[in-house]
Amino acid sequence: VGKPTHALLVHDDGSEEAVPDVAAGIGRDWATENERGQLELLYDYRPELLPSGQWHGDGMWRYRDLLPLDDRPISYPLPVGGTPLIAPPAVRDELGLPNLWLKDETRGPSASNKDRATALILQQAMTSGTRRVTCASTGNVAVSLAVGAAAAGKEAVTFVAADVAASKLRLMLQSGATVVKVEGGYEAAFRLSRAAAREFGWIDRNTGVNPATVEAKKTAALEIWEQLGREVPDVVVVPVGDGPTLHGMAKGFREIVACGASQRVPRLVGVQAEGCQPIKHAWETGERVRPAISATIADGIAVSRPVSGAAAVRDVVRSGGCFVSVSDTQMLDAMRILATRGGVLAEPAAAAALAGLLVALERRLVGAGERIVVLVTGSSLKTPEFLRAHGRVIEVDGDLDALRESLG
Amino acid sequence: VGKPTHALLVHDDGSEEAVPDVAAGIGRDWATENERGQLELLYDYRPELLPSGQWHGDGMWRYRDLLPLDDRPISYPLPVGGTPLIAPPAVRDELGLPNLWLKDETRGPSASNKDRATALILQQAMTSGTRRVTCASTGNVAVSLAVGAAAAGKEAVTFVAADVAASKLRLMLQSGATVVKVEGGYEAAFRLSRAAAREFGWIDRNTGVNPATVEAKKTAALEIWEQLGREVPDVVVVPVGDGPTLHGMAKGFREIVACGASQRVPRLVGVQAEGCQPIKHAWETGERVRPAISATIADGIAVSRPVSGAAAVRDVVRSGGCFVSVSDTQMLDAMRILATRGGVLAEPAAAAALAGLLVALERRLVGAGERIVVLVTGSSLKTPEFLRAHGRVIEVDGDLDALRESLG
Repeated sequence: VGKPTHALLVHDDGSEEAVPDVAAGIGRDWATENERGQLELLYDYRPELLPSGQWHGDGMWRYRDLLPLDDRPISYPLPVGGTPLIAPPAVRDELGLPNLWLKDETRGPSASNKDRATALILQQAMTSGTRRVTCASTGNVAVSLAVGAAAAGKEAVTFVAADVAASKLRLMLQSGATVVKVEGGYEAAFRLSRAAAREFGWIDRNTGVNPATVEAKKTAALEIWEQLGREVPDVVVVPVGDGPTLHGMAKGFREIVACGASQRVPRLVGVQAEGCQPIKHAWETGERVRPAISATIADGIAVSRPVSGAAAVRDVVRSGGCFVSVSDTQMLDAMRILATRGGVLAEPAAAAALAGLLVALERRLVGAGERIVVLVTGSSLKTPEFLRAHGRVIEVDGDLDALRESLG
Repeated sequence: VGKPTHALLVHDDGSEEAVPDVAAGIGRDWATENERGQLELLYDYRPELLPSGQWHGDGMWRYRDLLPLDDRPISYPLPVGGTPLIAPPAVRDELGLPNLWLKDETRGPSASNKDRATALILQQAMTSGTRRVTCASTGNVAVSLAVGAAAAGKEAVTFVAADVAASKLRLMLQSGATVVKVEGGYEAAFRLSRAAAREFGWIDRNTGVNPATVEAKKTAALEIWEQLGREVPDVVVVPVGDGPTLHGMAKGFREIVACGASQRVPRLVGVQAEGCQPIKHAWETGERVRPAISATIADGIAVSRPVSGAAAVRDVVRSGGCFVSVSDTQMLDAMRILATRGGVLAEPAAAAALAGLLVALERRLVGAGERIVVLVTGSSLKTPEFLRAHGRVIEVDGDLDALRESLG
């Protein structure tokens, strides 16, 4: 098999450089190599690399012929992927979007789409003797790695900003992780995590650095295609922080085309927070991605200096899509719609996608009749501080008449 | 098809009474009828009622020939069931249990096994014009109904005790439910919810009252059987509050036997909290189930006056199993094992099952070599107040040498 068969380095200016001898290089130190750009793994694309037979909710290993895995059996114990593609009737009605779907990534072991990358990297790690795995994180990646490492019998060392959300920190510690709080925010945590991985020989799960993270994330695109009856949608809307979730989505759809199973890719709509939009800014100005301020409730996409910014801009442009940004208020309102009409509990960064869709519709960048998939990347069960009361509380003493009156 | 074909009322003293004309009665007011006992739906069992073909993570509708559904397509929008059966290597090692599995019910839309019953009852409700659905709840049932009703375009009216966990109340309100706080605890909430359903014509989703709740819960047993390669395990360990989770599990395994696909059922181990164990007490004394005090952190199984107590005792006795009880400390320790060795985030009531297994092993009621399935009923993402720090926090200023020293 020998996969992946080749690779590219994508530099910050968008230029690409072929990387030799990749087939022999699975397991080598991608992270160090990757200092020079974003490494992208490529395969000898042909129809047989896509799964045949009906999809029933199978997990991400269904796509193993398009993943950097050898032929050993999967030993990672937590099933991941195979998440629902929900056709939400009440959301469709309320928004007037008859062909809207929600790809619900809140169903993973740690309730976010990060569980895909965690699974692939730990599957690779389980066949090595290395005990420690590391990442930097604004929250969800570290929770995911803490949970996954526990299952895999590894030790997670997660690097976070000193002001990481308390609710997410508690979950890392519940799972037994060693949590390193770093002064200087996410960017400093990212640098120290990478330096520690190199210095101590740990496995580096840093998003955008280890190319397996993008490989794992692309399986969500492959699932959407299968769940829509082997058709690609017109538009896919994705929250964008560091960039790899969008980049993975784009890569998945490109590979479906490369394997001959589709003529086109969907337009990608990347959504950033108004309070932190370096990638959208670069896309608008045509300049390089430059560091931005970060002031948003959406910790999952609050990345001032994104690792995969250039790749994300390239992917959106190639797809014919666009970037939009949304305010915290718009995210909270999208959380309300998803919870009260969709039955989907989304955290602010996840609800950003639906909020961004509403902006794109308003600006006629997306049409209401198009086939639209909104990626819901993480659960509000981990962000209790942003839950709002859209229902109401009635207090009664056990009397039916009092209840009738209160209900109105 | 005409299913179910017949039914029994199981009275509080364990006696059974045939119910006529059930085939015509799907959709009738089971709840009112059920005042006289626990209604149990039965089918004309034969091998064809079980699904054929390989299980790939399919949801609970895979078992629709054994569910009280007509032939209309499923319109409930949230996929439910098809949850992982995890073979957790590090938990197996730590506990010396080579044939242990975790049935991870935390992967539902509201992260508990309650989502199965919610799905079935809302699927039935979506074909009716009734707008309101109701339940009483110690927490998880109401969160599940709030989320499910939102997705189904219905209005949830949930009845809870005044001291319901704030974290669960927030989720009900986020999903737009009308929450009725009732003085007098869960039992008073239960009575008022049932009375309101009768008086106002709402759909009654009360666990143990609407027999569809048990029908839905039994699908977890059918999945376990398929996930083990169409074999039943030796032992299944289940947390017990009101009783229907255990009753559903027992019924599922009995139906596999009735369909001719197994010679035996597993032994069921029912686990109650030391602070609230009316069913275990009845099993020990041979007397009726009597109201008990409730003093435990495990709100999910803190039921003083259980609805399905008699059925649960009967089921455990018939299976050759037993009841055990566990302290809050034992539950917290089981949460630690599940989180740090299994990568499974279980709330106290859910971790009670693993804690109870350890008690049963200690007392030689279960053998370490047996094939054991532990049901993990709900996620600790909804009980942040019971998370504990099993890992550690290190604070550094971005220096690798300082980090090396701190790590030791």
